Amino acid sequence: MRIGIIALLSLFILGCGEKPAETSAVAAEKQQNFKWKLVTTWPKNYPGLGSAPENFAKKVEAMSGGRLQVKVFGAGQLVPAFEVFDAVSQGTAQMGHGASYYWTGKSKATGFFTAVPFGLNAQEMNGWLHYGGGLELWRELYDQFNLIPFAGGSTGVQMAGWFNREINSMEDIKGLKMRIPGLGGDVITRAGGISVTMPGGELYTSMQTGVIDATEWVGPYNDLAFGFHQVAKYYYYPGWHEPGPILELIVNKDAYATLPADLKAIVETAARAVNQDMLDEYTARNNTALVELVETHGVDVRKLPDEVIAELSRLSDEVLAELATDSEIAQRIAESVAAFKQQAMAYHGISEEAYYNARNQ
Amino acid sequence: MRIGIIALLSLFILGCGEKPAETSAVAAEKQQNFKWKLVTTWPKNYPGLGSAPENFAKKVEAMSGGRLQVKVFGAGQLVPAFEVFDAVSQGTAQMGHGASYYWTGKSKATGFFTAVPFGLNAQEMNGWLHYGGGLELWRELYDQFNLIPFAGGSTGVQMAGWFNREINSMEDIKGLKMRIPGLGGDVITRAGGISVTMPGGELYTSMQTGVIDATEWVGPYNDLAFGFHQVAKYYYYPGWHEPGPILELIVNKDAYATLPADLKAIVETAARAVNQDMLDEYTARNNTALVELVETHGVDVRKLPDEVIAELSRLSDEVLAELATDSEIAQRIAESVAAFKQQAMAYHGISEEAYYNARNQ
Repeated sequence: MRIGIIALLSLFILGCGEKPAETSAVAAEKQQNFKWKLVTTWPKNYPGLGSAPENFAKKVEAMSGGRLQVKVFGAGQLVPAFEVFDAVSQGTAQMGHGASYYWTGKSKATGFFTAVPFGLNAQEMNGWLHYGGGLELWRELYDQFNLIPFAGGSTGVQMAGWFNREINSMEDIKGLKMRIPGLGGDVITRAGGISVTMPGGELYTSMQTGVIDATEWVGPYNDLAFGFHQVAKYYYYPGWHEPGPILELIVNKDAYATLPADLKAIVETAARAVNQDMLDEYTARNNTALVELVETHGVDVRKLPDEVIAELSRLSDEVLAELATDSEIAQRIAESVAAFKQQAMAYHGISEEAYYNARNQ
Repeated sequence: MRIGIIALLSLFILGCGEKPAETSAVAAEKQQNFKWKLVTTWPKNYPGLGSAPENFAKKVEAMSGGRLQVKVFGAGQLVPAFEVFDAVSQGTAQMGHGASYYWTGKSKATGFFTAVPFGLNAQEMNGWLHYGGGLELWRELYDQFNLIPFAGGSTGVQMAGWFNREINSMEDIKGLKMRIPGLGGDVITRAGGISVTMPGGELYTSMQTGVIDATEWVGPYNDLAFGFHQVAKYYYYPGWHEPGPILELIVNKDAYATLPADLKAIVETAARAVNQDMLDEYTARNNTALVELVETHGVDVRKLPDEVIAELSRLSDEVLAELATDSEIAQRIAESVAAFKQQAMAYHGISEEAYYNARNQ
């Protein structure tokens, strides 16, 4: 069949001495090329977090045959990390990759779509977003900012963090200077600690010099790379403040509207694929990094006492109850996620959780 | 395609019309349309399992602008369920959706890529497949059958099943007639039970008439639809035999080779998206189905005794050790998955598992 067309084309070209082009407006639209900018809140190619937007761009370019090219900018290359939201909202860039809880200054309700203390883990967040009404609420919230959000990856449950102070009771949280942003930080403050927000790049030196007593970051894969084991005495678990943080890919609504239907589908599906891919990467690489931390570097891995966990959980409920009063939509989101959590705890209690426990026997 | 040729012919006949057509052989190849058949081991549109291939087909068609159309056939519509593998291998259909452990008659090693007793859960299977070398081994194994496998969804950990006999000790497994296929069935046989294989459609009546004493199926979402609560006394957890079964999308190698690069990327990315989508669906719908089973139907949900879990785990190790001796590649796969499991148990012990336990306090 192809040979026939080429033969036909040859005849046509020989006859007219011209190179023919598109046949119709439809074909012209389908063939239109798009060059998009994607700004991120991570340094360019930061392991795990920063590879997701790169993978997204590669998948989109491959699937579209180059019709939609996405150029990824690390934090500060086009706009600073914390201007990603505004840049995409205003169309300076067509897309962004970051975390919704960076934008609580725009609306406190954004915090629900990354992670809340003692909330959903990654599997549950994905269930809630894609089959539990979560994504619809997220889109409703972001619509006023001219943005369409997609889930854009997860690290899995994060570690409680690196500490230079033993935590044996809630007394040890009092006066603790800990780098822990967001709602987790609010909980630490309520517990009598001092929550500090600072960029990842400053944490190593701040721990080393005693400017802070503790810091959470992500998990073994990223933490090993930062070398926190060299400047901290204890590595505490379980993470309670970010049990399954979901990152976001955000798209400027006007830019999205200009895409033909096939490229829209390509953006949506690439986001979904990247969303899983990041969790797969963290699952595999956290495993091997933990082995290195413990066996090569002799890290002292400790469990937070049950009493501390229970009290942090109680304080988290207070913080979330207050957050829900922020706006009408915050209230609806809080109710949606709380209802999902209640059911997920019941089912995962006899499935995933029960299986983990059974496998350890 | 035909329209393109007619347009071209019209132009040619008109002489040198001002709306010229395709410019090159490359463009002509890119515009080629493909109509593929996808055969499945499930009834057409079976909830969860059967919706994955439908979603895959929709995504591929949307992303390709209709250039790759995938028609989904339920079990028995084009070929019977258990001929899916051969049909795709031989090119009767270009694609299939099912579970690799249905094909242990071809090679026992296929069993590793769905689930093994006391093995990896869904999150861990995805980590192993995509960042732990699992997918490469799977593709090596399937290459001899002219097939390329992709992960094609997961139900999450499955329930231990429905029983009409109380399980208080291993004595109660002796003589138990249970529908449980695959490696789980081998374990039950070693424990003195009688493992039976029969299609899902026969299970309700078999339980009702006492032909079998117990059956596993999937989890609350699918089990509720089958009405097992009407014919069984107890619903046991945790599932131990299929902790995170991964389904498969298989593609005929020759058919895949005929696709241009963009359509290959579309197939691969759609598979990845569907792989996560199914787990999201099961996570959300198992939650709500469990509520209905317990609150509306008063189902008696019971935990298998620790002693039984420990003994089933020991017998599973025996079954897996035997499986590994089947072939050189089975040995390599067994070693790869065992190494991943060891690390995953260490890391998930202080992350996902520890978090589930902490949240319950």
